[in-house]
Amino acid sequence: MGAVKSKRVPRAVREQQMMDAAVRTFARRGYRAASMDEIAEVAGVSKPLVYLYLNSKDDLFSAVIRRESEALVAAVTAAVEPGVPADRQLWSGLKGFFAHTAENPDGWAVLHQQARTQGEPFAREVAAMRAEIMVFVTTLIDAAAKEAGCDGELAEREVAGLAHALVGAAESLAEWANARTDEGTSGEREHPAAKDTAATLMNFAWAGLGRLITGERWAPGT
Amino acid sequence: MGAVKSKRVPRAVREQQMMDAAVRTFARRGYRAASMDEIAEVAGVSKPLVYLYLNSKDDLFSAVIRRESEALVAAVTAAVEPGVPADRQLWSGLKGFFAHTAENPDGWAVLHQQARTQGEPFAREVAAMRAEIMVFVTTLIDAAAKEAGCDGELAEREVAGLAHALVGAAESLAEWANARTDEGTSGEREHPAAKDTAATLMNFAWAGLGRLITGERWAPGT
Repeated sequence: MGAVKSKRVPRAVREQQMMDAAVRTFARRGYRAASMDEIAEVAGVSKPLVYLYLNSKDDLFSAVIRRESEALVAAVTAAVEPGVPADRQLWSGLKGFFAHTAENPDGWAVLHQQARTQGEPFAREVAAMRAEIMVFVTTLIDAAAKEAGCDGELAEREVAGLAHALVGAAESLAEWANARTDEGTSGEREHPAAKDTAATLMNFAWAGLGRLITGERWAPGT
Repeated sequence: MGAVKSKRVPRAVREQQMMDAAVRTFARRGYRAASMDEIAEVAGVSKPLVYLYLNSKDDLFSAVIRRESEALVAAVTAAVEPGVPADRQLWSGLKGFFAHTAENPDGWAVLHQQARTQGEPFAREVAAMRAEIMVFVTTLIDAAAKEAGCDGELAEREVAGLAHALVGAAESLAEWANARTDEGTSGEREHPAAKDTAATLMNFAWAGLGRLITGERWAPGT
């Protein structure tokens, strides 16, 4: 990267390279310890150019949060099969979520571990993205209840609680799936496949531990 | 508090007052913005006394994380009924968790929102506490599977995944329960009762969305 000639690269491309470098650096060093020197070095550009294009470390962090939030929401939205029953929509959304977080571990670490707790305005950006996903999940749980003919059975407050439980479970599983390595099986895949993680959560969420334990499973076809 | 005479109060008591003030300040301002001036003022002592007793803001933060982690683990451990079936143990543990986080919202905010992402050594302290709870939940899920005569039915990897899903769901729900207020019902209780939150999660975890939607519930007696 260091050999790229600055003048030949369009600004938009250069900015994406800087943000790629920033995501990686923020994820690995943490927001506080990440330096603009390192970000510039990873991006293969000079530090003044980073400041010229993205203004400050705060602005760069904000830009990164916005880009990674939009990418995550877009991935989940694109993954959901429209028009199918709510449980299938949830299943396809979960697969999309775990595939995206597995493919973008640094982006996920920035959103989940860094951005939420570095104060404003960063926390607000992530909270807005999380709220968007929460509305989507709440709508699906509501739709599933209506499809089952149980309108009104689940109180509105409980549906909101269930959505928060499900999103929290997905976040925790994504962190776990990205962090763990299978010791003693070097050479093999280090992380569980996104589809397996999605299946674990879908079974947990849909069938519950009680049914899982007695060997019952949720199945996409039913 | 400001009128308390420093010399009459034993050091151990004074330290707890400082930590109480620190928990409140870290939770409300965030780690970075919290000042030793404010902590001293809230504790009703001089800033030099805070430094004398607890050395530095970092050391104070570490002491607070340790105290709040131990209190949370102790509350969950004490709540669990030993010797009963695994689902009842899980239920009593969840009730203990949500009761403790509802009664100690600042302590929970420090552990969940502040400590995890301020780098080392803070993140390690919270990770150790979380790992302790994870072992407990993993053991319960394992025990439940064995009680149901389904030894080996759930793969070890999947049990670990389920434990992470359940703990993540509980964390997200505790944050939600502490944050939300019932608009338009001023004068009434602002937060859902800990027992209701525990019931929402237990139903979600044990019975699953599928059964919840069709009106089936997990019940403590079965």
